[in-house]
Amino acid sequence: MREVLRVPGGSGVDLSSYDAKATPAGPRDKAAGLAATAHMGEHLADLQERLWAASTAGDRRRVLLVLQGMDTSGKGGTVKHVIGLFNPSGCRITAFKAPTHEERQHSFLWRISRALPEPGEIGIFDRSHYEDVLVARVRALAPRKEIARRYGKINRFEKSLADDGVTVVKVFLHISYDQQRRRLLKRLDNADKHWKFNPGDIEDRALWPAYQKAYQIALDRCSTPEAPWFLIPADRKWYRNWAVSKLLLEHLEALDPRYPKAEFDVEESRARLLQGS
Amino acid sequence: MREVLRVPGGSGVDLSSYDAKATPAGPRDKAAGLAATAHMGEHLADLQERLWAASTAGDRRRVLLVLQGMDTSGKGGTVKHVIGLFNPSGCRITAFKAPTHEERQHSFLWRISRALPEPGEIGIFDRSHYEDVLVARVRALAPRKEIARRYGKINRFEKSLADDGVTVVKVFLHISYDQQRRRLLKRLDNADKHWKFNPGDIEDRALWPAYQKAYQIALDRCSTPEAPWFLIPADRKWYRNWAVSKLLLEHLEALDPRYPKAEFDVEESRARLLQGS
Repeated sequence: MREVLRVPGGSGVDLSSYDAKATPAGPRDKAAGLAATAHMGEHLADLQERLWAASTAGDRRRVLLVLQGMDTSGKGGTVKHVIGLFNPSGCRITAFKAPTHEERQHSFLWRISRALPEPGEIGIFDRSHYEDVLVARVRALAPRKEIARRYGKINRFEKSLADDGVTVVKVFLHISYDQQRRRLLKRLDNADKHWKFNPGDIEDRALWPAYQKAYQIALDRCSTPEAPWFLIPADRKWYRNWAVSKLLLEHLEALDPRYPKAEFDVEESRARLLQGS
Repeated sequence: MREVLRVPGGSGVDLSSYDAKATPAGPRDKAAGLAATAHMGEHLADLQERLWAASTAGDRRRVLLVLQGMDTSGKGGTVKHVIGLFNPSGCRITAFKAPTHEERQHSFLWRISRALPEPGEIGIFDRSHYEDVLVARVRALAPRKEIARRYGKINRFEKSLADDGVTVVKVFLHISYDQQRRRLLKRLDNADKHWKFNPGDIEDRALWPAYQKAYQIALDRCSTPEAPWFLIPADRKWYRNWAVSKLLLEHLEALDPRYPKAEFDVEESRARLLQGS
């Protein structure tokens, strides 16, 4: 699965060649997909507990899920439905908005560094440092030369994370232009969803080709062996949730975290408890 | 329900008069309790989304659940099973440990203030500023006079939170001495649970009466109209989860958060989307 969704870096990604409705290596239909995702929940929570338990004995490993995608691609839905399968106490979720005044006084990686998962945790970024080569590029929020330098900075930063025991899982939720229109219209149809709608989202649609190009460059330059990009077709929500769950499951299984052995005398503790304590 | 579990402040709480196995106002048995809790999940998540949505339009209200209780009373289990019913992206969970060197350089409320939920969020404290009048009192970690002053400081702090739109829900998970022994023994019986066991927990059992007294004082002095304490019998996990869920549900229903009205022209946006954008 990891190999199926992995974006080969440095080879000129062409997003238009990826069908956003595809379901590569996935369950055969929605019902099977929902069942398979629910079934993974227990395994995910079990592996998460092991990862956390291992950290209490000094294991520094952790996972960082980076979610990127156009508006309505389902970053929030993924957090709700996939991260909702985990124990919330071990999850550190950060949604990155336009940088604040304080954040703009620092390197673009400053706020990212402050939101990293600690050992044993699952970190989740809803948007990330990639915004600094996506919207920043499309809307020219920084000089061209500075943006050009950021890809290398990102790669070095992510390499240092990997060296420090962070398994970085970068997911691009790929939706089609038409699917975005349907989802935006659906929000307009339901008054309870109007708060999610921003007329600025329509302006951004005019920049769709520029965003796709910015994504292509980011995926191309920053899909590294230490921190590969995974492209998940996201027009079908059930497939998106299944695929992100499966990706996390495979990465956690590869980490194979173990419950630490007791560093105290179990029998002595039992005896003390039974003798009245 | 809120009234059933509420601890009357200033009236001399006697914890020994509360049966930790009781199920006040609860479902008739475990099966009914589990079903009722699962059933509340959808309502809780819906109210949480409304609270979040309202915050995007300037509503500053939020909820803070404070969990306190002896070791094994189920603070972690409550986060897993009850907070697990919510959308994780709107939850801000903090587990307070022994204060760090930096934290000790500040007032005991400093680290608490930094972990508060933002408008629209559900904050969860696994232990809290109450440790500074509980373990601090039992183990004399601060001068007696300083501890005596903290109750008033806590009440003023929580009053200021209420004034700022924070609904503070303080829950004391009440377990019995015998139930704690059973739970500690169960951890010893399962090698996968040894990481949760700390031989120091046995030392603390010798201080059980002192802890119960410290809790009585804290409940008595700090169950205020703005931030009442709720005592939840916690020997039965299914009841504990049901009761915390029900408490949160009642508080969220009382807040009655509403989806904000659109501040843009819905028909114009629809037309633009349909005309090709």
